[in-house]
Amino acid sequence: MASEMAPAPMEGHGSYNKSSRIQASSAVSAVAMLEEAAKHVVLPSAPTPIVIADYGSSQGANSIRELSDAIALLRSRAALRQGIQVFHTDLPTSDYTSLFVSLATDSKSYVQPGSDIYAAAVGRSFYEQILPSRSVTLGWSSWAVQWLSRAPMAIPDQVQVAYSHDALARAAFAEQADADWRTFLRHRSNELHAGGRLVVVTMGLTAEGEFGYRPLLEALYESLRDLADSGFMDSAELHGMVIPTVGRSLASIEAPFAGGMFNGLVIEQANAFLGDDPLWAEYERDGDAGKFAHGWAAFTRASVLPTLGQGLSGGVADARYADFLDRAEAGMAARLSAKPEKMVVPLVAVVLRQMEQGER
Amino acid sequence: MASEMAPAPMEGHGSYNKSSRIQASSAVSAVAMLEEAAKHVVLPSAPTPIVIADYGSSQGANSIRELSDAIALLRSRAALRQGIQVFHTDLPTSDYTSLFVSLATDSKSYVQPGSDIYAAAVGRSFYEQILPSRSVTLGWSSWAVQWLSRAPMAIPDQVQVAYSHDALARAAFAEQADADWRTFLRHRSNELHAGGRLVVVTMGLTAEGEFGYRPLLEALYESLRDLADSGFMDSAELHGMVIPTVGRSLASIEAPFAGGMFNGLVIEQANAFLGDDPLWAEYERDGDAGKFAHGWAAFTRASVLPTLGQGLSGGVADARYADFLDRAEAGMAARLSAKPEKMVVPLVAVVLRQMEQGER
Repeated sequence: MASEMAPAPMEGHGSYNKSSRIQASSAVSAVAMLEEAAKHVVLPSAPTPIVIADYGSSQGANSIRELSDAIALLRSRAALRQGIQVFHTDLPTSDYTSLFVSLATDSKSYVQPGSDIYAAAVGRSFYEQILPSRSVTLGWSSWAVQWLSRAPMAIPDQVQVAYSHDALARAAFAEQADADWRTFLRHRSNELHAGGRLVVVTMGLTAEGEFGYRPLLEALYESLRDLADSGFMDSAELHGMVIPTVGRSLASIEAPFAGGMFNGLVIEQANAFLGDDPLWAEYERDGDAGKFAHGWAAFTRASVLPTLGQGLSGGVADARYADFLDRAEAGMAARLSAKPEKMVVPLVAVVLRQMEQGER
Repeated sequence: MASEMAPAPMEGHGSYNKSSRIQASSAVSAVAMLEEAAKHVVLPSAPTPIVIADYGSSQGANSIRELSDAIALLRSRAALRQGIQVFHTDLPTSDYTSLFVSLATDSKSYVQPGSDIYAAAVGRSFYEQILPSRSVTLGWSSWAVQWLSRAPMAIPDQVQVAYSHDALARAAFAEQADADWRTFLRHRSNELHAGGRLVVVTMGLTAEGEFGYRPLLEALYESLRDLADSGFMDSAELHGMVIPTVGRSLASIEAPFAGGMFNGLVIEQANAFLGDDPLWAEYERDGDAGKFAHGWAAFTRASVLPTLGQGLSGGVADARYADFLDRAEAGMAARLSAKPEKMVVPLVAVVLRQMEQGER
């Protein structure tokens, strides 16, 4: 059961790259924080390479462009011929071929001949140490740490715990979220060298404590219930389907730092903010409810339907798997186009710094 | 045309991992050279990680196990908690998911909790610089640099130039092989730090200048001609099919070093030798010609049929592509089982060292 309830990678074959405009447009202010960090971060002495780690990169669509200005800033600060090495990390089963093909073919790719900028991938969960100790100069994690290491239990009345009324499930997910955040920070702290910085942007909560995306999650859960009611899948399968993501309050982000620092890391800056809904802005211009609905349904398909599909009795090898993705996406699109509503996109961003010697 | 005639990655979804016993058993003496290099190579000072680069790793089946003893040797020589980072490199379109899943699940994987050994992948041709300057401690390249950066021209009477009678084709491939070897060495020299070492094992030639594998290549070419004669593909498609690999003589390996060194690299050791044919040894024991034939046909399918299939008019997207792989493999297996013959497997191995300051 545990493996079925762990997150799956984003949908492969470049699908996630094509359906991730929402993440891209919502991380703009976090990208500014990343660039600020790139200006001030302590650099290693040449020839030791400057290392950038992109934690939870999926197929790179967001991070390749988001990182490019920060990389250019570091290039301008680096020694002549000092290498800059960018590690894109995600789960072992993520689609690295799409990542490397994007890096080789995207005209805005930071990998250009003679630039001394090099890309690599690491296929390993960021809930472990995945890069050498004290090797990372600048870390970036965008729309990734909302994914827990595992779903601690099934959710009886939703696929997203934020809209569950089950107190036990809510408590279990909150506890897992706190443990995973501390695990993530501890490993990143080991990987950062003294004076290195890490910028994290992830799903947040509104000032009222709301997770957001309510119309989307209601449409999704209703579509899944329809698939169970119609006999496409059984209710035990529906019950096993969980999106193991959480929105984090500023308080929960800051909790491990109650004593001032955590494992040598200190908070430089932390903000909660609302991201854009670029699809809604388009809908306001063109009134095309179908396009709006399909955009959000495609976003959901690429990001969370692969995880939900693992709940089919045969997992991803189930004969219904591809059909499941199609039907759930279509069900959502029909519901959202019938009653378009702007999505609330709560985000939280934090800049962390690994303390230097003598500072503690 | 150029892109059609460039090498394709090894067959994906773990297929190459399953059909690469021939490469594994034939590289044993080169693995001993790698371990010798691991004992004597100059190490960087902690916390700079010790970097191992595996050039042309495919899905890692060969290199993960081949590298493990060298990694253990370096671990024993490294400082406490000094990281060891292993980069597996191949073409952007290679199957990195299989690589990372092998690293996570193979019981002999060098990635173990608490070992301070970290894996990464680089999806970029080794005919470019793909890692930061002066960052690599120990390089390894097994069964990879026989692949040219491109086929310089079509071969009129074979798919492997070694068995062509066309003087123009033979000269063009020899020239490309020399240029590619120098390009490979120049980039590796930039990547190695002072005192770093690089071990290369690749296809060689016998003392008589033979490429080897004659029964295999005859069976392959006859099977492809059958596919053209039977109308499965047309003769222009057959003519466009090329395996852009070469066997290298010891003299051609040593040619760039005629002045003693090449771009700061010197030869420590170079050997030409014959690899095993493990399938023949099995056949001698059990007399099972079908198993022998299928083993060599599967080897060919995983390593070169994806490249040849690019010669179909629709390339890898051609509706006949999957059928092409199956038919060519079956044709070879039928021919080889009718008349089993031991394969000659000429190899060449070379150990190179990047000179240290003051040594030049």
